[in-house]
Amino acid sequence: MNKKAVVLLSGGLDSTTTLYVARNEGFDCFTVSFDYGQRHHFELQMAEKQSRKAGAREHLQIQIDPAIFSGSALVDRSLTVPEHQFSQAGIPVTYVPGRNILFLAHALSLAESRNCSVIFTGANVLDYSGYPDCRPEFFSAFAHMARLGTRAGEEGDPVEIRSPLIALNKKEIIELGLTLGVDYSLTSSCYNPDEQGQPCGKCDSCHFRARGFQEANRIDPILA
Amino acid sequence: MNKKAVVLLSGGLDSTTTLYVARNEGFDCFTVSFDYGQRHHFELQMAEKQSRKAGAREHLQIQIDPAIFSGSALVDRSLTVPEHQFSQAGIPVTYVPGRNILFLAHALSLAESRNCSVIFTGANVLDYSGYPDCRPEFFSAFAHMARLGTRAGEEGDPVEIRSPLIALNKKEIIELGLTLGVDYSLTSSCYNPDEQGQPCGKCDSCHFRARGFQEANRIDPILA
Repeated sequence: MNKKAVVLLSGGLDSTTTLYVARNEGFDCFTVSFDYGQRHHFELQMAEKQSRKAGAREHLQIQIDPAIFSGSALVDRSLTVPEHQFSQAGIPVTYVPGRNILFLAHALSLAESRNCSVIFTGANVLDYSGYPDCRPEFFSAFAHMARLGTRAGEEGDPVEIRSPLIALNKKEIIELGLTLGVDYSLTSSCYNPDEQGQPCGKCDSCHFRARGFQEANRIDPILA
Repeated sequence: MNKKAVVLLSGGLDSTTTLYVARNEGFDCFTVSFDYGQRHHFELQMAEKQSRKAGAREHLQIQIDPAIFSGSALVDRSLTVPEHQFSQAGIPVTYVPGRNILFLAHALSLAESRNCSVIFTGANVLDYSGYPDCRPEFFSAFAHMARLGTRAGEEGDPVEIRSPLIALNKKEIIELGLTLGVDYSLTSSCYNPDEQGQPCGKCDSCHFRARGFQEANRIDPILA
């Protein structure tokens, strides 16, 4: 197995930490971000900065046609991003149809054409409690499909998918990232930031981030 | 199960026939084509014409960043599209890394956001002899992954993937299409056509098309 990896990098706290985990394990990293018409466009700038800062080999920002996603609050500006609710059950309205499948499919093509042996994702327990495409079973099924559907898999060298944060909560992710030197001032987590990238402080993602920093006994540098 | 379907429509002979199969089964069709920097851009015009002709509900032409595909002869203009060879073994040089996975991933997002119950593909035996992402096992694995990774699957209503031509050879596909009223003069199969869309007559795809029409005892209308 070679030490080249594709890292899905959204510019948020989880994926940036994941990039540093991959780098720390000695991987030469190819980072990829997606512009799919999301409200939180600011994160794409953060992704590019983090990729450069981490010394990644290549950074690609891929356009995905937002027309195929209509109906999600993260893309469709006629819908409202909900405030965090403690008793929320089921799949959030911020679910984007098949989003992670599309992200992983792009990462897989990139991995195959750049001869990378691993794809790193930042999925973790907080995500997969709500989003079906963040669960460990989903990632296993994707890897199985990829093994059957690619030349790399056919030739006995399938692309591996790793989610090193999968069992960590936000507090643990932040603590891990800080030991690896992540600069969290250059990350964006909010689903609905303002023009300057300032977080709303009310959405699910802001809520989980705030609680993570609180539990880690740290000040979030984007609020400092 | 509702009667709405996404149809992957390349503008070639197989996918156009598949569109007519779906229509004949009573499906309201949403067609989707992909511009990924392929040499055979002419096929995209054919796809759009065929979609309109078949009365599809919507036609989307999706851009895929060709940067992620470097190394395939279908995309990379520094490589040569090989002429057909009878004894060719293994995966063809025209293999594009993870292409069908990306196409299906887009189709899946589209199916979920448009509430379609089925995705139709034109894969068939001639394809899956060479391309790993055209085999029945691959489509099953994709469907399984999609069931786990989407809201539709989570809620017990997974998107089904159908390849109605999977067991047919080119002769049988052409015969089926003609009974359904397909106009093959508006299809393009060549991997390397000239500016006006005229086929090269030498690549794998031209070879299989010519043999199909010959065995069906028909004149190919694009050569008439």
